[in-house]
Amino acid sequence: VLYVLDLIGVAVFAVSGALAASHRGLDLFGIAVLAAVTAIGGGTVRDLLLGRHPVFWVKNPMYLYVILAATAIAVLGATYIANLETPLLVADALGLGLFALSGAQIAEQDHHAPIVIVLTGTMTGVAGGVVRDILSGVVPLLLRRDIYATAAIAGICLYLLLQKTRIKRSWAFIIAILSVVALRLLAIAFSWQLPTFAAPQG
Amino acid sequence: VLYVLDLIGVAVFAVSGALAASHRGLDLFGIAVLAAVTAIGGGTVRDLLLGRHPVFWVKNPMYLYVILAATAIAVLGATYIANLETPLLVADALGLGLFALSGAQIAEQDHHAPIVIVLTGTMTGVAGGVVRDILSGVVPLLLRRDIYATAAIAGICLYLLLQKTRIKRSWAFIIAILSVVALRLLAIAFSWQLPTFAAPQG
Amino acid sequence: VLYVLDLIGVAVFAVSGALAASHRGLDLFGIAVLAAVTAIGGGTVRDLLLGRHPVFWVKNPMYLYVILAATAIAVLGATYIANLETPLLVADALGLGLFALSGAQIAEQDHHAPIVIVLTGTMTGVAGGVVRDILSGVVPLLLRRDIYATAAIAGICLYLLLQKTRIKRSWAFIIAILSVVALRLLAIAFSWQLPTFAAPQG
Repeated sequence: VLYVLDLIGVAVFAVSGALAASHRGLDLFGIAVLAAVTAIGGGTVRDLLLGRHPVFWVKNPMYLYVILAATAIAVLGATYIANLETPLLVADALGLGLFALSGAQIAEQDHHAPIVIVLTGTMTGVAGGVVRDILSGVVPLLLRRDIYATAAIAGICLYLLLQKTRIKRSWAFIIAILSVVALRLLAIAFSWQLPTFAAPQG
Repeated sequence: VLYVLDLIGVAVFAVSGALAASHRGLDLFGIAVLAAVTAIGGGTVRDLLLGRHPVFWVKNPMYLYVILAATAIAVLGATYIANLETPLLVADALGLGLFALSGAQIAEQDHHAPIVIVLTGTMTGVAGGVVRDILSGVVPLLLRRDIYATAAIAGICLYLLLQKTRIKRSWAFIIAILSVVALRLLAIAFSWQLPTFAAPQG
Repeated sequence: VLYVLDLIGVAVFAVSGALAASHRGLDLFGIAVLAAVTAIGGGTVRDLLLGRHPVFWVKNPMYLYVILAATAIAVLGATYIANLETPLLVADALGLGLFALSGAQIAEQDHHAPIVIVLTGTMTGVAGGVVRDILSGVVPLLLRRDIYATAAIAGICLYLLLQKTRIKRSWAFIIAILSVVALRLLAIAFSWQLPTFAAPQG
C-alpha cells in the first residue's frame, strides 16, 4: 500500500512540475527535467544526506517510468489538467504529507535525533519543489509565503509525539499524513501566512 | 586514450565556463569557480548519485590542474578565444558526447537499468552547464531551448541499442559519441528546437 | 576549544543568513532555512564530496539547536543586531577563517592532494553563503566581487606552507585562521577587489 501511495505521490509531483515548466515556457526536455526534479528531488536529497546508497530511484527505476508517463499525460492533457485546480491542490497536499512522513520514517529507522527526523522528513517533502523553482529561475515559493513546509513540520512533530502514546506506529503515520493534508488545505482556504520581518537594512 | 579525451573534455568545458563568467562580469575567483563547476559539475553529480567515492577529481586531482590551466588560458587569451566561435562549438559538442557516453558507461558497469544509464549519462554531460547557469543567475539554457541534452539522450540510447547487435562495445561507444556531436552540430546549423507548450495559466 | 569555536561559527553564520532572509522579505520558515543553509551548507557540501557519512549535523544535532537559537535571536533582536555591523563583519570573517581551516584539516586527515585540500577548505567556508544566495534568487555575492573566498584560499595555502617548516600544526592552524580574518578585514577596510575581465561578447 505504501509503495503504491509513494508512486502516486511521485506522479502527482511530476505533473505539477511539468505544468510549472510549461507555464514558464520551457521546452519538452525542460518539462521532463522539472517533472523529474519535483518528483524525486526531495527523496534524492534525503538519501544523499543520510548516506543511503543507492539512491531510491537508482535502486528502483519504476519511479522514473512513472515520471515519464506523468510527463506525457501532463503535456498531452495540459488544457484539461489545468482545469482540475482543486483536485491538483488536494493531490499535492497528499503528496506533501506522504513524502514528509515517509522521509521522517526512514530517518527514524536509522535512529537519528528527533530534530534530524523533522528536518529530513520536511526536506523529503519540499526539496523537490525548491530545486524546481531554482532551475526555472524563480525564488522558491515556499521560502516567501504560505503554510507549506510548516504543515510538514507540524505533521512530523505530531507523528513523533504520537509515538510516546500507546497508538500504533502505523496509525500515527496515517493520522500525521492526514493532519498535514488538513493543515495545508485549511491554509489555502483561509490564506494563512507565516509572519515576515522587515528588518532594517543594515 | 579515453583518459586523454576526458582531460580534453574537462579543459574545453572549463574554457567555456570561464568565458561565460567573464561575459557575466564575474571577478577572477568567480571565473575560476564557473570554469570548475562547468568542467566537473556533471561528473560530480554522477558520482554522488551513484554513491561512487571518492568523487573522481578527489581521487585524481589532475582534473583540477587542467581546470586551473584552462582558466588561465581563457583569461589571458579571451580576445583570441572569443574569435574561435566555431571551433569552440565543435569542441563543446565533443565534450558533451564524451561526458555523456563515459557517464553512461560508468552506470552500465554498475549494472543499472537502461533508464538509469540514460539519465546518469545525460546528467554527466549537462549538469555542469546547469550549475554554471544557476550560479550566475541565469535560467539554465538547456531547459529553455536547443537540442543539447536531447543529443546526449539520443546518443546514449543508440549506444544501448548497438550493444544488442554484434558490434563491439568500443565501436558502439565511438559511434555514439560521434552521433551526439553530429546531432548537436546539425541542430545548431539548422536551428532545430524542441517544441514548447504554452499551457493555459491555471 | 575547536568544537566551541565551531559552534560559534555556526551561530554567527546562522545569524547572518537569518538577517539576509529578513532583508529579502522571506517569512519565518524561509528565515530559518536560510539561517540553516548558511551555517551548515559549506560543511554539508564538504562531507558529501569527501564521502564522509553521516554528515556532521546528522551525527551531532547540537548544530541544529544552535541554528534554531541563533534564528530566534536574530528575529527577536533584528533591530539591535543590525546596528552591530562592525562586530558582525568581524564575526563573519572569523567564521570564514575557522570553517575554511577546519575543512582543510579534515581533507588533510583523509590524505588528499594539496589542491583538493585548498578546494575543500574554501568550499567549507563559502558554500553556505552561495547556497543562501541561490535560494533567495541573488547571484552569489562572492562570485561578483570582494576578497572573500580569496582570503580563505590564501589562509589555507599559508597553512600548508607552514607545515613544511618546524612550526607545530596547531600553531599553523591558528596563524592561518588569523591571516584569513586579517586579509578579509583589510579587504573590507580598503575596498580591495579582484580584477574582472570584460571579455568581448562572442
